[in-house]
Amino acid sequence: MASSSHPCSSPLGSLPVGSERVSGSNMDVWTLFNQLTQKHEAVNLGQGFMGFPAPDFVKQAGSAAVLDESCTQYAPPRGKPELRAQLAKDYSAYLGRTIDPEQEVVVTAGGNEGLLCVFSAFMNPGDEAILMEPAFDQYIMNLKMIHGVPKFVPLRVKDGVDASRQIVSADDWVLDLDAVRAKITPRTKVLVLNTPHNPIGKVFTKEELEGIAEIAKEHNLLVLSDEVYDRLTYEGRPHVSIASLPGMWERTVVACSAGKALGVTGWRIGWMLGAPELITLCLRAHTRYVFTVNSPMQIGVTHALQYAHANGFFQKQQQEYLARRNRFLRAIDAVGLPYTVPHGSYFVLVNTSPIRIPDGYEFPPEIAQRDYCYKMCYFFTKEIGVTGIPPSEFYSEENAALGQNFIRFSFAKSDETLDQAGERLQKLKKFISA
Amino acid sequence: MASSSHPCSSPLGSLPVGSERVSGSNMDVWTLFNQLTQKHEAVNLGQGFMGFPAPDFVKQAGSAAVLDESCTQYAPPRGKPELRAQLAKDYSAYLGRTIDPEQEVVVTAGGNEGLLCVFSAFMNPGDEAILMEPAFDQYIMNLKMIHGVPKFVPLRVKDGVDASRQIVSADDWVLDLDAVRAKITPRTKVLVLNTPHNPIGKVFTKEELEGIAEIAKEHNLLVLSDEVYDRLTYEGRPHVSIASLPGMWERTVVACSAGKALGVTGWRIGWMLGAPELITLCLRAHTRYVFTVNSPMQIGVTHALQYAHANGFFQKQQQEYLARRNRFLRAIDAVGLPYTVPHGSYFVLVNTSPIRIPDGYEFPPEIAQRDYCYKMCYFFTKEIGVTGIPPSEFYSEENAALGQNFIRFSFAKSDETLDQAGERLQKLKKFISA
Repeated sequence: MASSSHPCSSPLGSLPVGSERVSGSNMDVWTLFNQLTQKHEAVNLGQGFMGFPAPDFVKQAGSAAVLDESCTQYAPPRGKPELRAQLAKDYSAYLGRTIDPEQEVVVTAGGNEGLLCVFSAFMNPGDEAILMEPAFDQYIMNLKMIHGVPKFVPLRVKDGVDASRQIVSADDWVLDLDAVRAKITPRTKVLVLNTPHNPIGKVFTKEELEGIAEIAKEHNLLVLSDEVYDRLTYEGRPHVSIASLPGMWERTVVACSAGKALGVTGWRIGWMLGAPELITLCLRAHTRYVFTVNSPMQIGVTHALQYAHANGFFQKQQQEYLARRNRFLRAIDAVGLPYTVPHGSYFVLVNTSPIRIPDGYEFPPEIAQRDYCYKMCYFFTKEIGVTGIPPSEFYSEENAALGQNFIRFSFAKSDETLDQAGERLQKLKKFISA
Repeated sequence: MASSSHPCSSPLGSLPVGSERVSGSNMDVWTLFNQLTQKHEAVNLGQGFMGFPAPDFVKQAGSAAVLDESCTQYAPPRGKPELRAQLAKDYSAYLGRTIDPEQEVVVTAGGNEGLLCVFSAFMNPGDEAILMEPAFDQYIMNLKMIHGVPKFVPLRVKDGVDASRQIVSADDWVLDLDAVRAKITPRTKVLVLNTPHNPIGKVFTKEELEGIAEIAKEHNLLVLSDEVYDRLTYEGRPHVSIASLPGMWERTVVACSAGKALGVTGWRIGWMLGAPELITLCLRAHTRYVFTVNSPMQIGVTHALQYAHANGFFQKQQQEYLARRNRFLRAIDAVGLPYTVPHGSYFVLVNTSPIRIPDGYEFPPEIAQRDYCYKMCYFFTKEIGVTGIPPSEFYSEENAALGQNFIRFSFAKSDETLDQAGERLQKLKKFISA
């Protein structure tokens, strides 16, 4: 049969085309800046992976689990019982309620897959989710996969604080609850909260969370609480989960990450916690997306968590990250740039307002078409030799202007890397107008 | 604000509800029969995981990789370069073309995630995919996640062959190409092929694949070729990939599984192969679903594949599976039940037509509401002490009758397990009417 004669055949004998879901052509920011980093031999403070060795006890626990015959075949879709039991124990103490390992925990293929499962389980195509900007770029991409619609509410620096001229605290970035309410429609199903916050480093206070909880209850929203940096807070800031507030367990799913907590982002182990009714729905999405998660790494994480608790690992790790943060901030102080002091996560937003890129500076085509903070990041990578990430990646078009004068650096790097970056950053001084 | 007074608030102060995607309430077949197996202490020939130890060299390779510091952090979304290089080498020989590891391979979180990525990358909501029944249940569930519509064409036993009375060959199950053409509409985007086939054990011949390829080209369909059992064929049957046929590389994505090939279903490592234009789209879906795959297991698979090639592992493994198949078929022969002789994968469809379940036999509620083959499988688990899987799980409602008289057994089990199952199956004789 000649293909042109059939009513269902495609014109011109063409080839399969992509779906709407995967449309768009810009290279993702991580690949783009990883390539530029290599090309210009820059110090990479871009992507948030650890630039120092993973703890030996973590690697040993994983390595032993791979040899364990009980880890060679499929884990249950919910996750290995040993890991669920450990997580239930850990989070029962932390959330102030007894977590049922059989019904209230699902192990995910990294924290990210947990986010995707929550969007998938509670949103039909066209339903809306509230995101607080700057927002981790995967939220937006995950929503696109399920034909969900993001609605943006920016975190803003408090009135009277000028982030372009002075060092500000992550506490100074606040959420306007009325702005959240103004974005809610009958199609709003999910509100995404991220604490400790990437990239601001804000740790939401209990009072702030109470305000958000009130809105979620008023409008029957599911709260997706991204707490992947829950083990990384500084200066005694208590990390509070919105799931622990009255009436919120029934409408919150918490997403966490072993990669972040234990320094092994390559293991791709995360988990979701929530009430049985919510977790049942998330589990269905999870089972259909990945069926089940790598078995040996689940047992590796179980034993690593046990060792970590017995040996004060998390306290020690917090001190190490605090020292890295301060090491990096001292270098920025020496340059004389303003920034936001983070109290959680391992990112710093540095304000680039004082920097002047020389007139006529040339950008390659893949950068020239992007916005100002992409250009600034390119300038940092090529001229200064230090890579950061442009925060416009974390903003919608409507609010992109809010991120233009920032650059995100990760301080989850070795002292040597931080020192090398710090030294190179001093070159910025000649581009800062007095 | 009282929630009942706000126009956007939900009635009755209700809680978040699930999306259409995760609707439905039946427990999945795997969980249901795993639970029944435990309860009745049955021999589990249901789920297709290996019931014998994983090869030692595979475990050693994985264990060593976990200790390798280069495996602790994120792999690139496409996969570790070492694994992509190995796969490009392996499949270049097999597909008869030079595979580019930079553009034509993506490592996935198990073979299953590869299937999902292909549906996601080429189908918009409401678009249709052709499935050949019996079809692996995850195809249907994956399609539901992306609001895709499955269209079913059954494989049928050839005219003149009576599967309820005689032993048939997997070759006797054939696809009616006109029936495929009859199901194609302007919204048909994907045709799913599975060879070697689960659960029939059919290895499609080159001639059969040419017929399918012709249809794909006529109608500009993307072929998703599920070849996860590519290393498991018997009696010299050559596994042929439709991607190797003229004009098909441009429209085929092949999905494979390290878990099946190396006996470690718990590792969740798979891969997709295809032309750069197709893989670019699949990679976008993959990056948004799981971002990247477990790093150490990727390097473990790389080294295990190298060892396997150097030591004739795949040939040895085929012989072992052939012996397991024959061991199990001898037991079925002794019972006197008809079955389909598989030439690939590790499943056998046994025909239960001669068995009479005693009148008035009682079924628990979760079984009583299901169809006849669920009841038969329950009878096997409880009365005979051997668990299989009801093939109606692999059929649409319209064709469910075709699977009613079969039960699927996996012979990827130890000799001891197969012998114990074989012995127990002899109890069936008293339920077979002469």
